[in-house]
Amino acid sequence: MNIDLDNYLNTTMNPLDPEEFRRQGHMIVDFLADYYKNVEKYPVRSQVEPGYLRKRLPELAPDEPETIETILKDVQKDIIPGLTHWQSPNFFGYFPSSGSVAGFIGEVLSSGFNVVGFNWIASPAATELESIVMDWFGKMLNLPISFLFSGGGGGVLQGTTCEAILCTLTAARDQMLDKIGRENMGKLVVYGSDQTHSALQKAAKIAGINPLNFRSLLTTKSTAFGLSPVSLRSAIQSDVKFGLIPLFFCATIGTTSSNAIDPLGPLCDVAKDYNIWVHIDAAYAGSAFICPEFRHFLDGIEGANSFSLNAHKWFFTTLDCCCLWVKEPSALIKSLSTDSEYLKNKASDSNQVVDYKDWQIALSRRFRAMKLWLVLRSYGVSNLRNFIRGHVKMAKHFEGLIAMDKRFEVMVPRNFAMVCFRVSLLMVGNATQKLLGEGDANEFNKKLLESINATGRVYMTHAVVGGVYVIRLAVGATLTDYCHVNKAWKEIQEHAHPMQNEFLRQHEAFLAGPQINEFKLSTRFPCP
Amino acid sequence: MNIDLDNYLNTTMNPLDPEEFRRQGHMIVDFLADYYKNVEKYPVRSQVEPGYLRKRLPELAPDEPETIETILKDVQKDIIPGLTHWQSPNFFGYFPSSGSVAGFIGEVLSSGFNVVGFNWIASPAATELESIVMDWFGKMLNLPISFLFSGGGGGVLQGTTCEAILCTLTAARDQMLDKIGRENMGKLVVYGSDQTHSALQKAAKIAGINPLNFRSLLTTKSTAFGLSPVSLRSAIQSDVKFGLIPLFFCATIGTTSSNAIDPLGPLCDVAKDYNIWVHIDAAYAGSAFICPEFRHFLDGIEGANSFSLNAHKWFFTTLDCCCLWVKEPSALIKSLSTDSEYLKNKASDSNQVVDYKDWQIALSRRFRAMKLWLVLRSYGVSNLRNFIRGHVKMAKHFEGLIAMDKRFEVMVPRNFAMVCFRVSLLMVGNATQKLLGEGDANEFNKKLLESINATGRVYMTHAVVGGVYVIRLAVGATLTDYCHVNKAWKEIQEHAHPMQNEFLRQHEAFLAGPQINEFKLSTRFPCP
Repeated sequence: MNIDLDNYLNTTMNPLDPEEFRRQGHMIVDFLADYYKNVEKYPVRSQVEPGYLRKRLPELAPDEPETIETILKDVQKDIIPGLTHWQSPNFFGYFPSSGSVAGFIGEVLSSGFNVVGFNWIASPAATELESIVMDWFGKMLNLPISFLFSGGGGGVLQGTTCEAILCTLTAARDQMLDKIGRENMGKLVVYGSDQTHSALQKAAKIAGINPLNFRSLLTTKSTAFGLSPVSLRSAIQSDVKFGLIPLFFCATIGTTSSNAIDPLGPLCDVAKDYNIWVHIDAAYAGSAFICPEFRHFLDGIEGANSFSLNAHKWFFTTLDCCCLWVKEPSALIKSLSTDSEYLKNKASDSNQVVDYKDWQIALSRRFRAMKLWLVLRSYGVSNLRNFIRGHVKMAKHFEGLIAMDKRFEVMVPRNFAMVCFRVSLLMVGNATQKLLGEGDANEFNKKLLESINATGRVYMTHAVVGGVYVIRLAVGATLTDYCHVNKAWKEIQEHAHPMQNEFLRQHEAFLAGPQINEFKLSTRFPCP
Repeated sequence: MNIDLDNYLNTTMNPLDPEEFRRQGHMIVDFLADYYKNVEKYPVRSQVEPGYLRKRLPELAPDEPETIETILKDVQKDIIPGLTHWQSPNFFGYFPSSGSVAGFIGEVLSSGFNVVGFNWIASPAATELESIVMDWFGKMLNLPISFLFSGGGGGVLQGTTCEAILCTLTAARDQMLDKIGRENMGKLVVYGSDQTHSALQKAAKIAGINPLNFRSLLTTKSTAFGLSPVSLRSAIQSDVKFGLIPLFFCATIGTTSSNAIDPLGPLCDVAKDYNIWVHIDAAYAGSAFICPEFRHFLDGIEGANSFSLNAHKWFFTTLDCCCLWVKEPSALIKSLSTDSEYLKNKASDSNQVVDYKDWQIALSRRFRAMKLWLVLRSYGVSNLRNFIRGHVKMAKHFEGLIAMDKRFEVMVPRNFAMVCFRVSLLMVGNATQKLLGEGDANEFNKKLLESINATGRVYMTHAVVGGVYVIRLAVGATLTDYCHVNKAWKEIQEHAHPMQNEFLRQHEAFLAGPQINEFKLSTRFPCP
């Protein structure tokens, strides 16, 4: 007899008491609703110094419980000042992390159910809803049927593009090694452009591709930083000549630095000649393809093997939610499946169901389909198109403001809702073109951006494209409206103006050139 | 001039309107509170058939918006029947996914803030809180200081153990290849036992380890399925003899099948002799080590390089939340860092901050520390210990019930809150010992489990340990109390009894043996 009755029911606290859940749940909803109401008042980029939090928090976890009221006070006092507010309407950095009520509600539902849907039986709804919304979304994007379940392909929700690339690269690698023998692993080559996201290089490294066999092919301004099919073919030919084996190419639609676009059709044609797996990374821009006017950027996708976009970037779906479609799920499954006895079940044995654990790196997986379903249903396709178009129009508007001020220049053609610009020191006089190198301009714009971001009133980030430092203004935070774009522009001008004057004083020789334009901010859309 | 004023403000819907957020937020909290109140009424394991949902949902996403009221009705009608209810008090399958109010609130807060904390500046609080709670938790577990930030190590939150293992394995691989040259990649060997989670094999495969160099070392009942250091040494020696290079060993405390325990101290000693990276996977059992009476299982951890546990399993922290501590963060960083210009910033350049993107596979990352912080503060260390102990006591109680019924046997020693048992066909008579093989017993118990799970009243899963099919009852769902354990036991008996009688009828010859025991369910803890 081994029944231990001591302390039976002595743990009086029920950590999942429905009424306590209700009480705290309502409190947190109000807390967050107030946060959104006030988010514009907080400095967009956190103003804290490294190590600020360790000074404020105790050395050890508390031994005794603390109330939610106390904790929320601390969130307000200690955490919120340390946040960079991605939901602020004045957030224009990186790519957006576009939240929405529907995305939030979906996330909360799946957190509440807290199921672990590694295989079908562990929660059939999690798996089936995922397959269904991935087909819905695929149809909205007008993907070739070969990427949909109905056409033999299929979609899966991953956390991030990095994971999507790692999974497809692993599948491609194993498929190839099956043919050519594992001893040739060291000969496999992975291709991207110098604009491709670092996720590719990282995935290649993790997958054991020899770092010497990672090709980051040069792009230039002449192709707006899209990869030239000629470059790809020539790199491949050179590798083949040296006995290497081309494996995987990642094309990007809407690169992180400048939203550059790789021409899919011609690039897929090259890849096809060498039997290379093509993955299309449209992490940011992919959401725009639900609008017919942007869909042409995907033309040529028929020649690719896999395609991914991040719904958590520009599709109002809370982080994390990367949508990956593949033509050949069996390639993923062959590479990533495991056959643990403790997960065996009738449904899986019957081969009638999808077990998404075999489509991803991890075993456990959250019920991410819920939030995508909520977003699609709560807004509907028409509104989602309008939201996207609204952001693109605001970016166009910003581009127009820049065009009115000759001190600034747009550095690469705008394709979506991001504008890459800089203060053009070359504009102040012809003489400068000889005397000032790009280095000066880069340094100037870097200082300018830092000075703007330090105010906390607006947040943008930067990139270097073709050696040129550019400031990126990415419209897409859900709360952003025209007034915020105007405010950003005003900040930019107000910081650039004195800095530019100071610069000109330091380079008096150039003052012989034409005078700089006057401050020309449009005030047609004032902030309320 | 490029300002497009058409349709300015024609998008009247604000997808992040604070008052709509408040309205829907409160609605969802009530929906989930009611779900918890009623969760016991739903069949634990979903009863739907493959493909059920596609029949119920439309072929396409809606063009126009639908109200949250409509959507929630559909969640109730179409989604909930397709859930396997991990939060049900009658859920005893796999390992628990132990939700809590605090874990939920923390998850909701981070979903609300929706920051993308890839590096420090992208949200300093996300990074700093993570480092702090990982030190808190590390101290609660009495980890050697070398695993804490204060001792030169550090902790990071990953999604899952699979990711934690892949990251550490990649770090170990690259560290080794730096020494021995990349051309030796094909010689690297990874070790685990035949009880190690399939995550190791999968990670090894993804990381490009030759599948022929993956060692799944035999364990036996004699060591309670813990790996013998002699086996490890002998496998290593054999590999070395054949010119292979030992790389990585994953020890497990609390295996998935049977909660077996690898003896850390002696195993780490062996690994040290060959300079092998040791990772300790305590995905499930790790949480118990905050109780001094369980901490001894971690003795010997000083000799390991990394250690992980899943707070989303048995630490009341919503999925996903894997805690990984490493002694040498620099090894992770060296392998996993990327150096994208667009992420450069002063704080990172200063080397004063942690950039967690370099500690994981993905770039983007959620603010997972929030929920762990909420759990630690809302309950306090004392209560958390009590919760864990409560589950262990309930498992002990169940073990006691089994001991009272001679028709059943516990198949491996219980270490934590999981009991592996089966109906013992050998008990019905000596004659059977000659005539019935383990195959019959396995088949019988498999049928028994399927029959129990099909009722939807209780859910358990199985494993095969040492060739024996065992039923696993894992206590840990947050709402589980003694009455639910008793109810499970009653279900088990009520299904086993007629099945056993039927079996005996089919094998009449054995009836000569001693009579089976009478039904002996304790009714001391009836469900309310």
